Amino acid sequence: MREVSIVGIGSTAFGRHPQTPIEQLGVQAAVEALHDAGIERERIGALYLGNFISGPLNGKEVLAGIVADQLGLPNVPCTKVEGACASGGIAFRHAWMAIASGQCDAALVVGVETMTHAPTAQTTAALNCAMDNLHDGPSGLTFPGLFGLAWRIHAQRYGTTRKQVSAVIRKNKANGLLNPLAQMGATLTDEQIEASAAICDPLQLYDCCPASDGAAALVLVARHLVPEVRGVPVDVLATVQTRGSSRIGGHADLCSFDATVVAAQRAYAMAGVRAADVDVVELHDCFSMAEIVDSEDLGLVPRGQGAAWAAEGRTAVGGDMPINPSGGLLAKGHPVGATGVGQLYEVVRQLRDTHPNPVRNARIGMAHNLGGTGVACTVSLLGRAS
Amino acid sequence: MREVSIVGIGSTAFGRHPQTPIEQLGVQAAVEALHDAGIERERIGALYLGNFISGPLNGKEVLAGIVADQLGLPNVPCTKVEGACASGGIAFRHAWMAIASGQCDAALVVGVETMTHAPTAQTTAALNCAMDNLHDGPSGLTFPGLFGLAWRIHAQRYGTTRKQVSAVIRKNKANGLLNPLAQMGATLTDEQIEASAAICDPLQLYDCCPASDGAAALVLVARHLVPEVRGVPVDVLATVQTRGSSRIGGHADLCSFDATVVAAQRAYAMAGVRAADVDVVELHDCFSMAEIVDSEDLGLVPRGQGAAWAAEGRTAVGGDMPINPSGGLLAKGHPVGATGVGQLYEVVRQLRDTHPNPVRNARIGMAHNLGGTGVACTVSLLGRAS
Repeated sequence: MREVSIVGIGSTAFGRHPQTPIEQLGVQAAVEALHDAGIERERIGALYLGNFISGPLNGKEVLAGIVADQLGLPNVPCTKVEGACASGGIAFRHAWMAIASGQCDAALVVGVETMTHAPTAQTTAALNCAMDNLHDGPSGLTFPGLFGLAWRIHAQRYGTTRKQVSAVIRKNKANGLLNPLAQMGATLTDEQIEASAAICDPLQLYDCCPASDGAAALVLVARHLVPEVRGVPVDVLATVQTRGSSRIGGHADLCSFDATVVAAQRAYAMAGVRAADVDVVELHDCFSMAEIVDSEDLGLVPRGQGAAWAAEGRTAVGGDMPINPSGGLLAKGHPVGATGVGQLYEVVRQLRDTHPNPVRNARIGMAHNLGGTGVACTVSLLGRAS
Repeated sequence: MREVSIVGIGSTAFGRHPQTPIEQLGVQAAVEALHDAGIERERIGALYLGNFISGPLNGKEVLAGIVADQLGLPNVPCTKVEGACASGGIAFRHAWMAIASGQCDAALVVGVETMTHAPTAQTTAALNCAMDNLHDGPSGLTFPGLFGLAWRIHAQRYGTTRKQVSAVIRKNKANGLLNPLAQMGATLTDEQIEASAAICDPLQLYDCCPASDGAAALVLVARHLVPEVRGVPVDVLATVQTRGSSRIGGHADLCSFDATVVAAQRAYAMAGVRAADVDVVELHDCFSMAEIVDSEDLGLVPRGQGAAWAAEGRTAVGGDMPINPSGGLLAKGHPVGATGVGQLYEVVRQLRDTHPNPVRNARIGMAHNLGGTGVACTVSLLGRAS
């Protein structure tokens, strides 16, 4: 397999784009990434597009072909991939595979979703397409409910408190204020968080990521072609895709996702690094409790200490293990199919020293994208160009 | 890239499965393919699932992960791919790529769709997700309309008649009678076809494929592992994925699909064979006129002669160029995401000498899968095990 680098990045702001059709959001991000890479469109050999629910929400599929058509790409394979909230990470991994295997020399990755174009009830119902509806649907459990259960277990097992969980929210919302692409940065107090509406006890309003529209894009090339393009390269050290049980009852522990644990182990092995070598991570904080569980599953924080580390400031920029300096899903937003690509966009900016909320001297960055009830996961490790 | 063989096949009947959830159709086909291959599930290194519109029609996504969970596959990448009606062919190509590139040694491909579970109006609306709805949607043109236009052009340009087009239908419906998996085999007369309901003039009822539920599955392995499994191998000689314009106005000729023409050329080059070497083809006859256009685009029939060849019996089993001995989409049915995988299932049976409607001494078979308004296409060439 050949070595691969990211040489171009693009992103719309995450937030509300009520007037912009979904395909145009994807095109906007792609145009920016192609321009950033300084690569001719004729050289793109494959397009992978991550999207989750444009069918139910927009009545639009074949988005990979439609975006390629609007971009004027050559006649190359254009594929939509879907793995719920991990769709973006899966798209990235397949572009990497196409180049690493020699199928093509350059590839474009686009992640895109709109979550505010349809009525809220329709969007909420569509999000539940990520459940195993045959088995778990009849229980009535929703995603906030799942992370509410995880919270209760974490609290019982490790003594995690509301104030510790709030520290995750305050950190990510503050980080979001520094990221112009973020939807909902804010300066929040514990009192404001504790006074916010109950969603699915113990989850309250600020424990949940917002509904977002947005797109992000990346251009990847075989590493030997880096000198031929303008974009500042970042190396792909590893990218791994795993699965976990689609059924909630199939998880041995509701406070840990197997798919994440295994993906991280494989990614470290593939890159030849250890968790301690990771300088910055963008991980899948769809809920405050998700950041806590993910950070432990990835081996970045000791088991049971995710909330305590946040409360002690150890996961802030400048701390031992900076988590989600972009604001994460909680503050930057979560346009589902775009999220995994947007995380990589943020990590590239860190390793290029162009991030608005920089982690100083970061050399290795991680992106972690998790779908459904842990049914699909990607973990990627990026490094400064060698 | 390593050589790859198909060693296991499975399929449900195509037709109405009102009581069977979509994921269970996929599991049924997969279990049959795994059994046919005689391979342990622990050896499967990737799952690719082709599906088009389970989101809008069933409220279900992450089907790759759900099917893997029910099958008890190991923790491997499980990915849904989508390219409208070409989703199944795209899934096959990615399983091939995963093995050919050394990412894994064995992979499972599943194609699945239900088209009769939702109300007809909802299903019809969902099918239009394959259109470029931003550009072509407002025109009101539907897929029958598109192939009606193609018919008018073909008739004007080449003198194609209703009776010649009917010959395609009569052939495929008769072939379908011999295929136990087919939904709507029939013995039809020209008079019956001409008396059938107008759908979108000049298309009538029998010019259109039925709405179908169904699933098909394949097991692929690296060729050096063929001796380790029980399944009778068929070699993958080539598999190519292309794109065409997503907009109807983007096609230079409404009577030809660029994506098909280019995919065929690349597939012949990849396999090192010519069109004349193809002994049997399963091609994408979503409408009678589609078979005529496809057979010409693939170079199997001289340009303009697709209808004439059918009328002369040259595309029947035993003719110069046997087309759709399975019954094709017109008679076997078109469970969209399953169709491309089902075509490969049929070609494997031909090359294994186990087809119920056999093409004698077939050594090279082709499968052609076309999505949307020609926006995505796959062409694969299979050969008897060398």
